[in-house]
Amino acid sequence: MATSKCYFSIVLFISLVLSLGLLCSAADDNPRGRSEAERDPWRRYKECQRRCEWDTRGETEQGECEDRCERQFSHEQPRREGENCKREEEEEEEWEGRRQSHNPFYFPRGRHAQARFQEDNGNFWVLQKFAEKHHLLKGINEYRIAHIEANPNTFVLPHHCDAEKIYVVVNGKGTLTFVTHKNKESFNLVPGVVIRVPSGSTVYLVNQDNNEKLTIAVLHRPVNNPGQFEEFFPAGQENPQSYYRTFSREILEAVFNTRSEQLDRLFHGRQRQQGMFRRASQEQIRSLSQGATTPTEKQQSFAFNLLAQKPKYSNQNGKFFEACPREFELLQDIDAAVVGFEINQGSIFAPHYNSKSTFVVIVTQGNGYVEMVSPRRSSESSHEEEEQETRSGEYRKVKARLFPGDIFVVPAGFPVTFVASQNKNLRFLAFGLYHQNNSRIFIAGKTNVVKQMDSAAKELSFGLPSRLVDEIFTNNPRESYFVSGQRQHRESEESRGSILDVARLF
Amino acid sequence: MATSKCYFSIVLFISLVLSLGLLCSAADDNPRGRSEAERDPWRRYKECQRRCEWDTRGETEQGECEDRCERQFSHEQPRREGENCKREEEEEEEWEGRRQSHNPFYFPRGRHAQARFQEDNGNFWVLQKFAEKHHLLKGINEYRIAHIEANPNTFVLPHHCDAEKIYVVVNGKGTLTFVTHKNKESFNLVPGVVIRVPSGSTVYLVNQDNNEKLTIAVLHRPVNNPGQFEEFFPAGQENPQSYYRTFSREILEAVFNTRSEQLDRLFHGRQRQQGMFRRASQEQIRSLSQGATTPTEKQQSFAFNLLAQKPKYSNQNGKFFEACPREFELLQDIDAAVVGFEINQGSIFAPHYNSKSTFVVIVTQGNGYVEMVSPRRSSESSHEEEEQETRSGEYRKVKARLFPGDIFVVPAGFPVTFVASQNKNLRFLAFGLYHQNNSRIFIAGKTNVVKQMDSAAKELSFGLPSRLVDEIFTNNPRESYFVSGQRQHRESEESRGSILDVARLF
Amino acid sequence: MATSKCYFSIVLFISLVLSLGLLCSAADDNPRGRSEAERDPWRRYKECQRRCEWDTRGETEQGECEDRCERQFSHEQPRREGENCKREEEEEEEWEGRRQSHNPFYFPRGRHAQARFQEDNGNFWVLQKFAEKHHLLKGINEYRIAHIEANPNTFVLPHHCDAEKIYVVVNGKGTLTFVTHKNKESFNLVPGVVIRVPSGSTVYLVNQDNNEKLTIAVLHRPVNNPGQFEEFFPAGQENPQSYYRTFSREILEAVFNTRSEQLDRLFHGRQRQQGMFRRASQEQIRSLSQGATTPTEKQQSFAFNLLAQKPKYSNQNGKFFEACPREFELLQDIDAAVVGFEINQGSIFAPHYNSKSTFVVIVTQGNGYVEMVSPRRSSESSHEEEEQETRSGEYRKVKARLFPGDIFVVPAGFPVTFVASQNKNLRFLAFGLYHQNNSRIFIAGKTNVVKQMDSAAKELSFGLPSRLVDEIFTNNPRESYFVSGQRQHRESEESRGSILDVARLF
Repeated sequence: MATSKCYFSIVLFISLVLSLGLLCSAADDNPRGRSEAERDPWRRYKECQRRCEWDTRGETEQGECEDRCERQFSHEQPRREGENCKREEEEEEEWEGRRQSHNPFYFPRGRHAQARFQEDNGNFWVLQKFAEKHHLLKGINEYRIAHIEANPNTFVLPHHCDAEKIYVVVNGKGTLTFVTHKNKESFNLVPGVVIRVPSGSTVYLVNQDNNEKLTIAVLHRPVNNPGQFEEFFPAGQENPQSYYRTFSREILEAVFNTRSEQLDRLFHGRQRQQGMFRRASQEQIRSLSQGATTPTEKQQSFAFNLLAQKPKYSNQNGKFFEACPREFELLQDIDAAVVGFEINQGSIFAPHYNSKSTFVVIVTQGNGYVEMVSPRRSSESSHEEEEQETRSGEYRKVKARLFPGDIFVVPAGFPVTFVASQNKNLRFLAFGLYHQNNSRIFIAGKTNVVKQMDSAAKELSFGLPSRLVDEIFTNNPRESYFVSGQRQHRESEESRGSILDVARLF
Repeated sequence: MATSKCYFSIVLFISLVLSLGLLCSAADDNPRGRSEAERDPWRRYKECQRRCEWDTRGETEQGECEDRCERQFSHEQPRREGENCKREEEEEEEWEGRRQSHNPFYFPRGRHAQARFQEDNGNFWVLQKFAEKHHLLKGINEYRIAHIEANPNTFVLPHHCDAEKIYVVVNGKGTLTFVTHKNKESFNLVPGVVIRVPSGSTVYLVNQDNNEKLTIAVLHRPVNNPGQFEEFFPAGQENPQSYYRTFSREILEAVFNTRSEQLDRLFHGRQRQQGMFRRASQEQIRSLSQGATTPTEKQQSFAFNLLAQKPKYSNQNGKFFEACPREFELLQDIDAAVVGFEINQGSIFAPHYNSKSTFVVIVTQGNGYVEMVSPRRSSESSHEEEEQETRSGEYRKVKARLFPGDIFVVPAGFPVTFVASQNKNLRFLAFGLYHQNNSRIFIAGKTNVVKQMDSAAKELSFGLPSRLVDEIFTNNPRESYFVSGQRQHRESEESRGSILDVARLF
Repeated sequence: MATSKCYFSIVLFISLVLSLGLLCSAADDNPRGRSEAERDPWRRYKECQRRCEWDTRGETEQGECEDRCERQFSHEQPRREGENCKREEEEEEEWEGRRQSHNPFYFPRGRHAQARFQEDNGNFWVLQKFAEKHHLLKGINEYRIAHIEANPNTFVLPHHCDAEKIYVVVNGKGTLTFVTHKNKESFNLVPGVVIRVPSGSTVYLVNQDNNEKLTIAVLHRPVNNPGQFEEFFPAGQENPQSYYRTFSREILEAVFNTRSEQLDRLFHGRQRQQGMFRRASQEQIRSLSQGATTPTEKQQSFAFNLLAQKPKYSNQNGKFFEACPREFELLQDIDAAVVGFEINQGSIFAPHYNSKSTFVVIVTQGNGYVEMVSPRRSSESSHEEEEQETRSGEYRKVKARLFPGDIFVVPAGFPVTFVASQNKNLRFLAFGLYHQNNSRIFIAGKTNVVKQMDSAAKELSFGLPSRLVDEIFTNNPRESYFVSGQRQHRESEESRGSILDVARLF
């Protein structure tokens, strides 16, 4: 009997402990208490968002739940007019980030990236492997995106990679040089310059400007392991270190025909400057820029200037430049197209999809948002691979607000559209991976795919007389490719206001 | 002491429970009792089969065990003459299916497939990913096989896929049209027509016939993720849904320059018909077929007719048509050959192997069986990947009875042969994946590989004078490629009877 | 109270058992006792090595620990002069093997390989899949390396594989023949002959010589499953077995138009010889060699002789022959280059790296060592795949002593150098995988990459006046590609002695 009492008290004690634990965790969900939440609709919206994260299973349900929170919030919007707009933007960015953390296609600036070199004079970071972000992106896992930024008057240490590379200058002015043991190539850099640096070439750069940073986006296609590449530095002390130092002393003495002491001074001596990014004197900068060629709109050896070409699409609402492997031979080994486009403020890059190529889009300037159609999946775990979960013919909207430095992936076949904000042009740089003979197929605007169909097909598809379908797809639209954000006729305050609301909602 | 008694009784009780459990499961193995099994040799054969499944480990042993059951059964065959043949066939199909459930190369009709759209007017299903069926097939995981079947006078809703596609018409009469925003291509469909629909093209079909179904096999090579593709429908309500509906209202209003109410009628109005397959009127069908070109034996734009060509092999026992990427440019992007062949009743497609290409063979008509040589592996788990389990130079027979709709995979290098039944011709459609410069190498029949060897090589290999080897490989055979199921000389009742027995055994 | 005593004693008992276990395992670490270790510095070194294996985590730390052991040992080296050098070499090889067991790039002779056929008259073994050895090698997992060795006057049974193959004759004299059902190709074999055997071709060989073994390295590129291939034998009894025996009797009778009894004699009769390697008579050998063509320095049909060409690099210290897919069409399907090079005794193949191609290097004769620069990783588990563990700009030395039969993998971009021993030339055969337009970029010797850089780049990189950098990279070196192991000037006993020490240390 003593034993049974013992057991009973142990069980009771354990259940007490569990209950306490549950109570505490429940309490944590509402740290500020009810009254404050009631007073602040913005916080109520955030609460609603947070509950969506926990209560729903999968991106599908969560997206619908968040849509409901959004609608609820928009009714209460008038109350927010008087609040501090700046704080609002910060909070918007904060929860936008959290909300988008599970968006497979969206890489907010600075997230999902690893800084390989972060120094006073510059930085070099690499975006996470695509397959590690989400299994839906494993088809482009062979490619890596990186970003170099050098301060004014800065030299970037020579290095080679085990990857094919395409450098695209986003901003700044400088010189890029690469060498093999046989030859040297040198190019002047201005925004829009595209340079192919072959795998194994030793490359170095210098920022000529006194004020501006030199910003370059680099597309890598590694040759050893899919999606994995390294930098090898011939010179350096620590971080980076010179690879010569790794060889045995005896070998270096023999191949350089030089005594140890001299080699020590070269490879082990204490240097005035450390790191991958080093200050250069004006004289050194001038000397590095001598003999560099200036890329033009046509390919000359390893470079061309994307923005010096005729744009592929252009009207008063935007411009679109594209360089494909078919016309630019230097893009063939890496099999990627380079695109630069700009959507004027308040305009839209019409809904379209790419026939073959997956585009990685990098925001370089301005802000706006993107909407994309993605097939709906039952579960959204980033490691989920079984296909039987796909529900055919059902789609969900993928959207994200875009800021400079954000990266967005548009898979082939997925309809997508980009919208610039009302007050700033929105500029992008994009790489079209596995480009081959990709075409961009527009589904709305004056040029669209439905126009081409037989009348009977339109009737059977939309269930309306083809005359009515034609009104919308053929007669009404006035512009192709880049479309004004307002309707051309019956411009009412409401329609202009609605784009604005949508922009602010995000 | 009280406690030790307590423990002892607990232990005793647990072992009693376990024993009962074991007894029960053992009893389940023989649900019908002994007497009934004794009375029915067919059931005894099934019992024998079932025991083979449980008692043996691995496909190897199980195959041998089943062979023994078969031999045992064939001795008792005379007793079955009087029974209902129809029921026999049903049962044969039933246990055949179960027996073949672990055959890595065999996909029985309707199994291992997912119906993406199953409607009154038609259906569209996709075969499981090859790598999910078995790791031995992971080399062809980039490709997917699908099947469209539309009822008479039915229209298939426009859609585009993120995959390169080859359509091959198996049966029926209709029109296929695909559009981009720039152009439209339209082709008349009859059996044998092969059409390339480029990735991203929006395609729709119509079945012109009043009685026959339109049956098409589709080979996909997805561009986003290996082995994974989706359909995107511009028009539709629910299942499928239109992708336009996914975009925000404001965007649609702006790009279509149309008011919401009009857009609602187009995208959200209640349609008379739902689904991917819709009835079309005679007038609509006529209008959809206008302007369609009829494919010929040569490639014209995106299509040709496989059966309009000269056959590659042809004699009184069968015909074989093949279209390779080298001669037909439209097959180059997808890198697959299209083959159609027919084995006349009672004939054999001589043993051969493919040098480079893996063939996916689809039975379109008739029945028969296939025998293939596969290297023997120690264990047969479908997820087993280590190679050290392979026993070099040992083979096992892979065989399967073939019915219309069955799919069989023949890897490169694996010797294989197909046999038609005595009463029906056996017809196939096949895709040769990763075709490149594949050749088909025959190992038996008048044309065979051993004939080409040096005499000394034949002697050393077979351990017989080369004269004797030549008698079998060079002198005796009369036919190449398609061989009669009977021997040409000394046609005895026995030999004819033996093929018949083999056919019935399955 | 009785119960609590009971519990306490159980707990005490368990802890006693555990303590005993720990004591025992600790004791095992030092089986020989202290005194013996003290007496023998060699054993002390081995002890030090063994502790490094257990105490450190990851190849990085272990490498540093072993370096410390090495330095400690070299101080005590004089004591070892009098010992048995032969035993020393055996022990060196033993611990070298153990030490290198986790080197991802090094395959010691006979390890990491599976013997598919091991017989009296010859053997055929295949190297492990690269991805199974280490995840760092998964980029070349499509390729497999194999090795055939046939005794004098031996015939190799005909077989075909589901893989593209390149045969390179390392040693011996013979004939290789391959057939399809349409044609036959036959080539004389001498060292340096390179032959492409297309996937699916049935190939057989004969060793013509009376004394020497015929040794051939074979590069495979499988067509069915990446890195996995099988052999199919038309003739054979058991191990290997003929694939004809796998087909049903009825099918064989019909396609060969031959009675069972005759077929039985051919496929099931007891043969005088068994196995893949069979003795051949002089007459059979002569007859097999008739009509064979002798490969020259240019490609003729499927073969050429690598060593009959002009070497790519050549001086008094070594020779280097290379055949690339660009010039030799037969290498294009398999996309690999074939290289043969020889480093004279006491010389060095100057440090260099490959721009695109991963080289698999096989030691055919002599001995020496290799040093390679590899990026440093935080953890070294062979299944580790996350890249965030890489520490950019840090390198570690990968080195291995090389003996005939050893295989070493040099990934693209990794600087590497090979050193021959003082008393023997060092010969290699190598395959450059995924060759495309690879170039070999030298980083030391008269030809080197730093020479090409701008003066300002040299100054900023090395932190020294470019005049001093030029002295080392431009003025001092006298030789390119193959460099003498001694410095050309001020040849002191010390420097010559130091290479010797390094060689012996290993």
